[in-house]
Amino acid sequence: MHVVSDRQSPRATALEMAGRQREISVSEFFLKNRHLLGFDTPAKALVTAVKEAVDNALDACEEAGILPDISVQVSDRYGKSRVIVEDNGPGIVESQIARIFGKLLYGSKFHKLSQSRGQQGMGISAAGMYGQLTIGKPLHIISRIKGDKLASEMYVSIDTARNQPDIHKKKRLKWDRPHGTRVEMEMEGHYQKGAHSIEVYLKQTAIANPHLAIIYKDPHGEELRFARTTRKLPPRPVEIKPHPYGIELGRLIQMLSNSKSRTLLRFLEDEFSRVGKKTALNIIELARQHSDRKLSNRSYPKHIAHAQATALHKAIQKTRILAPRTDCIVPIGEKQLLDGLHKELEADFFTVTTRPAAAYRGNPFQVEVAIAYGRPGGAGVEVDESGHMRKKEAQETRASEHLIAQKDEPVHLLRFANRVPLLYQQASCAITKAVIQTNWRGYGLHQPKGALPIAPMAVLVHVASVWVPYTSESKEAIEPYPEILREIKLGLQECARKLAHYLHHEQQLHQEYDRRTYIEKYLPHIGVALQDILALSNNERDSTLKKLDDVLHESRTMQRPAP
Amino acid sequence: MHVVSDRQSPRATALEMAGRQREISVSEFFLKNRHLLGFDTPAKALVTAVKEAVDNALDACEEAGILPDISVQVSDRYGKSRVIVEDNGPGIVESQIARIFGKLLYGSKFHKLSQSRGQQGMGISAAGMYGQLTIGKPLHIISRIKGDKLASEMYVSIDTARNQPDIHKKKRLKWDRPHGTRVEMEMEGHYQKGAHSIEVYLKQTAIANPHLAIIYKDPHGEELRFARTTRKLPPRPVEIKPHPYGIELGRLIQMLSNSKSRTLLRFLEDEFSRVGKKTALNIIELARQHSDRKLSNRSYPKHIAHAQATALHKAIQKTRILAPRTDCIVPIGEKQLLDGLHKELEADFFTVTTRPAAAYRGNPFQVEVAIAYGRPGGAGVEVDESGHMRKKEAQETRASEHLIAQKDEPVHLLRFANRVPLLYQQASCAITKAVIQTNWRGYGLHQPKGALPIAPMAVLVHVASVWVPYTSESKEAIEPYPEILREIKLGLQECARKLAHYLHHEQQLHQEYDRRTYIEKYLPHIGVALQDILALSNNERDSTLKKLDDVLHESRTMQRPAP
Repeated sequence: MHVVSDRQSPRATALEMAGRQREISVSEFFLKNRHLLGFDTPAKALVTAVKEAVDNALDACEEAGILPDISVQVSDRYGKSRVIVEDNGPGIVESQIARIFGKLLYGSKFHKLSQSRGQQGMGISAAGMYGQLTIGKPLHIISRIKGDKLASEMYVSIDTARNQPDIHKKKRLKWDRPHGTRVEMEMEGHYQKGAHSIEVYLKQTAIANPHLAIIYKDPHGEELRFARTTRKLPPRPVEIKPHPYGIELGRLIQMLSNSKSRTLLRFLEDEFSRVGKKTALNIIELARQHSDRKLSNRSYPKHIAHAQATALHKAIQKTRILAPRTDCIVPIGEKQLLDGLHKELEADFFTVTTRPAAAYRGNPFQVEVAIAYGRPGGAGVEVDESGHMRKKEAQETRASEHLIAQKDEPVHLLRFANRVPLLYQQASCAITKAVIQTNWRGYGLHQPKGALPIAPMAVLVHVASVWVPYTSESKEAIEPYPEILREIKLGLQECARKLAHYLHHEQQLHQEYDRRTYIEKYLPHIGVALQDILALSNNERDSTLKKLDDVLHESRTMQRPAP
Repeated sequence: MHVVSDRQSPRATALEMAGRQREISVSEFFLKNRHLLGFDTPAKALVTAVKEAVDNALDACEEAGILPDISVQVSDRYGKSRVIVEDNGPGIVESQIARIFGKLLYGSKFHKLSQSRGQQGMGISAAGMYGQLTIGKPLHIISRIKGDKLASEMYVSIDTARNQPDIHKKKRLKWDRPHGTRVEMEMEGHYQKGAHSIEVYLKQTAIANPHLAIIYKDPHGEELRFARTTRKLPPRPVEIKPHPYGIELGRLIQMLSNSKSRTLLRFLEDEFSRVGKKTALNIIELARQHSDRKLSNRSYPKHIAHAQATALHKAIQKTRILAPRTDCIVPIGEKQLLDGLHKELEADFFTVTTRPAAAYRGNPFQVEVAIAYGRPGGAGVEVDESGHMRKKEAQETRASEHLIAQKDEPVHLLRFANRVPLLYQQASCAITKAVIQTNWRGYGLHQPKGALPIAPMAVLVHVASVWVPYTSESKEAIEPYPEILREIKLGLQECARKLAHYLHHEQQLHQEYDRRTYIEKYLPHIGVALQDILALSNNERDSTLKKLDDVLHESRTMQRPAP
């Protein structure tokens, strides 16, 4: 069924082809590739838009040292959705509003090395661009900065051919908030429940951000509130300079030629993290040997040639330098993570671990892992204060059920990057690969080959970094760099060991319970038999049985490992 | 192990935050995210660089109507790789060279709706940027256009802060090629063999491009040649206008306000594919009813308000319009695909199908599927001309082995988009999902739940489109849009039906062979027994046996289905 006809367009010459070469605006590029930004289907677009607005609000509040109060409101009519996100952040200076909301690749977080949710300067303007494409309406923004008597209101869209904001209306108005920002967007959307819902995104956000309070009003007008569990803001991540080990030769050459330092010694001290005078001198001495003594402490950075830069680059790799600083990243913390998990989901067993900081390609990062095992209503056994065992009561099931797998299902993953839940593209994510590559059978779980383990369990992994390497601009999965995979696996193993211990104990309890029930059932018969053989009175029989029971109980209790 | 100290950076005000807002250059963005462009590891970077250069060479040759002769040369010393790709294409006009090789998002293929390998204007300049980052050397380009006495030579790098080319050296020189382009790049690379090698990329490229001749010299100096199997160039894809069904409301509004047409009627006829006067009148009449008669044939496009545009958009969806034109896409073709497969790999059974063209979001696309089943050396049975069966001889194994799975392995996928092989990110690709979602058990293959079928088989899928929705800028996997998934599945089913027929026949042949061997073994014993019972002479016995054998053979042949 080969249907190609013999049609032939005229063949082109080099000159004609040259005439068709054009610059492509970055907005046009992403408009045509909107799935790269998370706007491929109306359902996903709606969640992505909420996520981008909430992430921005959280970043702004934290940077300004404000405890975030965020309200999210979503309505949905015949596939036309409206999203309103309002925060109590510091507000945005009027002259910046249009570019922040109406230009891709514009922002404050890209050029600095410190942890934040946003990093590309694309998310919220992409949401605006999607709304503009599907419904044709601009973003509506109100923002007020502290001390300003009025707020600024603006309608902004993107001129996609130039990647520049278009301001449609602009005015100053009274607003009851002392400071904050409100963004309203209309777009083709589809509201849905389930694993990829706004609710799940917000619930997971609350777990990873215990200092956050959110009020969410869904399209049916129902209100869902997530209260904060701590009034303490996370420490603000410090901005760092690049670590010398992560610098490629070409980048080093570029840094040398852009440097304002007047000597090589100053250049190394000024532009890198962890390089003091002594380390700098060591590097230069080594580079000197590699470059026929054509380098010295006083070499002028801009004049260093390719061969000498190569020698310098080699010398850096061979010099001992302190590991990257880690105060540029802020893990959630074991206690906070446990509190968050306890608050949002019900399980029989929790464990959590925070790994020490590490680095990939010079970028510091840190991994946290938590495991929640056992669903409420599962067949647990517990020991009460008096040492008596009983079956746990089936507890009321909560919405959190979605987060923990059924016992015959693959475990559920809660993936986070810089405190932001990742809901899509699970298969391509470093976190998923690390869980699959961990040998869960060694810890007593069932695991099909090359797949997630099967257990009533949720595995939470948080990767915090100054630069998270996402697999696409929609920031839905983490690129599996070997260093990152390795750290996640180590964290998983730590948690899995504690889980194995718990499961072993659980199993013993279960066996014990069965044995005990068995004994309790047959003790009266033993009593009758003994009475018969030893000719005991009823009282003697009962007291003998009582002693027997106690002895059996004690011997078993002694054997049981401490919880 | 919560290690966060009580450090606190000073909190920022809205004004300070405004001062940090900056524009991010698209080159800086991709430099920091180079994994998005396929340059995450040195091994992958090397393959990606070759691929980008070869894809460009092929596009240029085809556009100029030239049968492509391409040479690829790779060397690799201590992690420093050099790639040289040379073509006999039309050459590049000197004034365009720097921007084509030294600027991201610059090209001729983005804005037109017709099939080509490149579409983003990023690949080759990204390779240059990666070389610049890791080794610090610019790209070296030589290009000569037909009729020009001399060639242009240039060394080009990217000024990443501005996304503009830097020209380091430029001169005119003699070059023995009458026309063509040669690009040389140095980069951190790692040469490797196997499924993700340059060889496999080139072999698959040869399968999908039977008009191409390549000479490849690998780092060990060995030469590999892929000859062309046809001297006929594929028909050149025609450039089309957008189809009205694929246009979102926001885009329609933008088109209206940018239009040079003076009436709505002309606008519809001029700017869309498949809209003649009659269809345009139908659309307008329907839109008129939806918009309180505020629209007419003569409405001035730039003055149409949001409400009327909405009515127009609705009317378009409700009007019957011819399906998109398909001469903008060029499938490989069933015969060419079979020839290519036969040439590059050895199998017992081949089948191929080309689906009719379809569209996703207004973008025409077309799917081709081929299956190659059975590895040389497998236990096949064949019938020779005289009707005798024999076991197939084990054939010499070829390099092609890599492309067909072992019989206890998941099938191998050969994925193509616009004639370009896709080597990475198999798990996220629409092709993989379609193969997994197909019920292969129904066609006689073994298939674990939710996984690829297990068989000695290669499945080739080619998706050709005016705009392939890749899952990232590195163009390694196709986004699983429902329309695309559906077409791939239909193609797979067609091929699978033919495969099932072949397998059924194969199975019968096998059973037959076993039965026949059995009969041949016992016929002499039957002869002896008959001779004994019926008191036959030796001659009578032999002729009876002969008759018996023929009758048995015939009756079996009758039952056997035609091949």
